[in-house]
Amino acid sequence: MLQLVLHYDGTNFSGWQRQPDRRTVQGVLESALGRLCAEPVSALGSGRTDAGVHARGQSVGVRVPEKWEPASMRRALNALLPDDVWVADANAMRDDFHARYSATARGYSYYVGTEEEAMSPFRRRTEWGVLRPLERESLDRAAAFLHGEHSFRAFAVRGTAPPEDDHRCEIRRAEWRTRPGGLVFEIEANRFLHHMVRFLVGTMIEAAQGRRPVADLEALLVASDNDEVSSPAPAHALFLDRVRYPADLYLPKA
Amino acid sequence: MLQLVLHYDGTNFSGWQRQPDRRTVQGVLESALGRLCAEPVSALGSGRTDAGVHARGQSVGVRVPEKWEPASMRRALNALLPDDVWVADANAMRDDFHARYSATARGYSYYVGTEEEAMSPFRRRTEWGVLRPLERESLDRAAAFLHGEHSFRAFAVRGTAPPEDDHRCEIRRAEWRTRPGGLVFEIEANRFLHHMVRFLVGTMIEAAQGRRPVADLEALLVASDNDEVSSPAPAHALFLDRVRYPADLYLPKA
Repeated sequence: MLQLVLHYDGTNFSGWQRQPDRRTVQGVLESALGRLCAEPVSALGSGRTDAGVHARGQSVGVRVPEKWEPASMRRALNALLPDDVWVADANAMRDDFHARYSATARGYSYYVGTEEEAMSPFRRRTEWGVLRPLERESLDRAAAFLHGEHSFRAFAVRGTAPPEDDHRCEIRRAEWRTRPGGLVFEIEANRFLHHMVRFLVGTMIEAAQGRRPVADLEALLVASDNDEVSSPAPAHALFLDRVRYPADLYLPKA
Repeated sequence: MLQLVLHYDGTNFSGWQRQPDRRTVQGVLESALGRLCAEPVSALGSGRTDAGVHARGQSVGVRVPEKWEPASMRRALNALLPDDVWVADANAMRDDFHARYSATARGYSYYVGTEEEAMSPFRRRTEWGVLRPLERESLDRAAAFLHGEHSFRAFAVRGTAPPEDDHRCEIRRAEWRTRPGGLVFEIEANRFLHHMVRFLVGTMIEAAQGRRPVADLEALLVASDNDEVSSPAPAHALFLDRVRYPADLYLPKA
């Protein structure tokens, strides 16, 4: 069993998950794996990413014929994959490794550009340009509410989790950082609901523009539906950065 | 007369200059200008950029109907141009402004990535991945030779300048800087010959890998042909950063 760690530019993909007649990351990867292994190979991702969302740490489990060492599989895939997907790492894993269910944490970053140049061709694919002034302190206060375990029902697309799901997620890190040309929101949690980071960012940005009270963030963490959440921030500025697993799932390097 | 300052991602362009049946920056810009002005408008660039070369400071002169203020032209163009071209600035200029002949200096940057991640989809469009070790001190010594006025005949594509051209350029700045994940070479001169920055970078990198003596740079500055130059570094890591003009060519902002 191999783990592949993928970077991809989501711009020209209809998201991670294989779909008929759509260019998806899973589809492109499985097609390259199929060519190399001369048999169909499924690529199981740690989770879906939406259309437009980028990754520089998507984790994928693949079962390939014995003869493929991680390093040679990585080289062969990188020679075959299109320019917008790249295998950053490949690891031999224990047979019970499951890219989705074995994950203990996931980390995302969301890039907000606060100057006009965020619209330049080198930044518009990966940043959300927000030119109205933002109250930085409000962002920090909003992010602080998120720490710990809460129900994120208000920050999820309705009906995308099974009815018995309690929507609880444990946020281990949630922080806005200043960077040249803007800000980045970094969040790590045991799991994420569908569109959750984008709803969180959309709501925090509205609060930081004075368009709703910062205390709304706290109120939404106990809300029973998503009626009061702001619009989700655009997909194209979101990066899946990393997926964490217990160390003992990794086999020692040969 | 207006000056437009353009950013463009050169990846999907066959360079700056209009060509039949090719997608070029000049072609795309002139077509947008033509639609806005309802008449053909020529866009005169400060100079050509090769296929794949990027800009975040290409300077373009356009003569448009009186009613177009710089700011409204800029907005209208940005609404119409494709995602890989962006008008960063627009200025009203004196009538004798000439985007090419009025320029007093041009500045370029060349991005070298020195780690494997330079191959990731977010960097491979704009960096040259050089994984063999580089002797940093050799780069600095090589760059130091370039300062001042020299003939750059050895660093130009043969036959691209008129026969009477002395190939002399005055280098005002030439410097390697360390940056996260690699290096950047920054150069400013009164003018550049065809492929000159790419030949300079290709030759300096070979010297810094110990594949030729650093002193070759000095020798090439008095060479009478380009027989001994290294291969040009790839186009996709080169940026035209800025073009300078005398301040009195800019009309006061309204």
